[in-house]
Amino acid sequence: MLQRVERKIEQYIASLEHSGISRLYTMLPAGKRLRAKLITYIAGGDLETIKLAAIVEMIHAASLLHDDVIDDALVRRGKDSINATYGNKTAIMLGDILYSKGFNELTKLDSKIADVISDAVIKLSIGELDDVNISKSFSIDKNQYLKMIYGKTASLMEASARAAALLAGKADKKYAIYGKNLGIAFQMIDDLLDITATSDTLGKPALHDFKEGKTTLPYIYLYEILNNEDKMRLKNMHAKTLSNDESSWVLEQMNIHNILAQCYNEAKVLITEAMELMREEGEDKLFMIAKEMIDRDF
Amino acid sequence: MLQRVERKIEQYIASLEHSGISRLYTMLPAGKRLRAKLITYIAGGDLETIKLAAIVEMIHAASLLHDDVIDDALVRRGKDSINATYGNKTAIMLGDILYSKGFNELTKLDSKIADVISDAVIKLSIGELDDVNISKSFSIDKNQYLKMIYGKTASLMEASARAAALLAGKADKKYAIYGKNLGIAFQMIDDLLDITATSDTLGKPALHDFKEGKTTLPYIYLYEILNNEDKMRLKNMHAKTLSNDESSWVLEQMNIHNILAQCYNEAKVLITEAMELMREEGEDKLFMIAKEMIDRDF
Repeated sequence: MLQRVERKIEQYIASLEHSGISRLYTMLPAGKRLRAKLITYIAGGDLETIKLAAIVEMIHAASLLHDDVIDDALVRRGKDSINATYGNKTAIMLGDILYSKGFNELTKLDSKIADVISDAVIKLSIGELDDVNISKSFSIDKNQYLKMIYGKTASLMEASARAAALLAGKADKKYAIYGKNLGIAFQMIDDLLDITATSDTLGKPALHDFKEGKTTLPYIYLYEILNNEDKMRLKNMHAKTLSNDESSWVLEQMNIHNILAQCYNEAKVLITEAMELMREEGEDKLFMIAKEMIDRDF
Repeated sequence: MLQRVERKIEQYIASLEHSGISRLYTMLPAGKRLRAKLITYIAGGDLETIKLAAIVEMIHAASLLHDDVIDDALVRRGKDSINATYGNKTAIMLGDILYSKGFNELTKLDSKIADVISDAVIKLSIGELDDVNISKSFSIDKNQYLKMIYGKTASLMEASARAAALLAGKADKKYAIYGKNLGIAFQMIDDLLDITATSDTLGKPALHDFKEGKTTLPYIYLYEILNNEDKMRLKNMHAKTLSNDESSWVLEQMNIHNILAQCYNEAKVLITEAMELMREEGEDKLFMIAKEMIDRDF
């Protein structure tokens, strides 16, 4: 099924009749195609569903192109990013081309589906803007953070699941919650991995997010629990390159206060609800996608 | 009528319920609202038309935000650009927000209208990408240049006129040609002004385009007519900051070979066709928009 989605994306790109764009497109890593999986697992393999999945993956690819420019990211899924290889200008314009092609094909689907997906792209773009702005200062507002990751990461998953359910005549509200919870938990776990995953070059976690100004959930919880002196210490490290001692201190404090388990459990609550909904609907594959997201070592 | 379009755009922005975006939006210069004029002059003032005009102007504003990032432009219509004041990241994301809000509202209009406008945004984005790539070398392919300015500047005007004609039940093909010709001529004249308009700071034309690598139509024609030695001389000046002597030489050669009149006449042919079509349709206001574009000193 996913192969049919890949072919459909290739057809959409080919219909632009522009060899430069076709070449650039082959430079993009396909990724896990998580959104296409959700859509085809929910709505099956008819042509409308394959088109929806292809459109959503093009829109997702466009958002990642702009995201990498925003974050000055030089690597995406192990490959050099388009902005690293061809510059920001090419990455911005290729993103705009994939967005507009996705939107144009969307206008040929049912208008309710088009509304759901394009509304998610508004939320996604606002989430990205908020991410940039929040990172400019030491931000410890949990609600603000959750709203931002909902927009940036979960809104398109929520819309994918909901639109697929609408196509299939299934209970779209349940599927929307499933997609939303999956997306928020996905981002929470991604934020955890930045603190737990050992970097090959450093031999310990890189704490990239904090260095880039991003006070993700673990930093918010850690700040809440620290005494005033340590609060200041943490705050002073924000958005800087940390020394060995400093990053060791951060990791030690996370450990002492059991912060990572707290964050993991918060993600797990969302995933458990998502799994429960899919058990009710008899959706084994979607149940497993949620389960595998949380069943791993950190 | 244009005031109703402004109010509608403000309503669309307000519906995002994000004070930061509302504030940024007020920083954008409104511009001439040429596309909104075309749409309302063609289709009148019912709500669908006002919505279409508002959506197209939001999409146009989004394209200018990204265009200014691409061109490293610090000024837009006499105001500091968003990228100059708030940085490229904010400009890219605000562009994405305006694009996606425009597309989302488009899905609520007739699907044919949505198709016409979103298809133009694909062309516009491809035109921008081509503009970036063409500027990397000394490019003297006239067809390539015309195709690029059609995409970058004319495609959204063509689509605006066509979509408005479809809404109004008028002869959409005629109006599409009108919009297309107006757009291409507009860009040709803009390119001429870069060579003829005296810069306040320099006291003579700035020749910005050529310095930025853009070989616009006058440079293409000049190159064609120069002898081999002067061809090389021109080519060697490409994408560089010109000395006083060099820019004087370019202007002198343009003058000797009557290049500007040649370009002006080419724009005039397009405008004359556009005027003729509107005379046939009895569209006085649209006739005058075209006429005023060409009736000026250079």
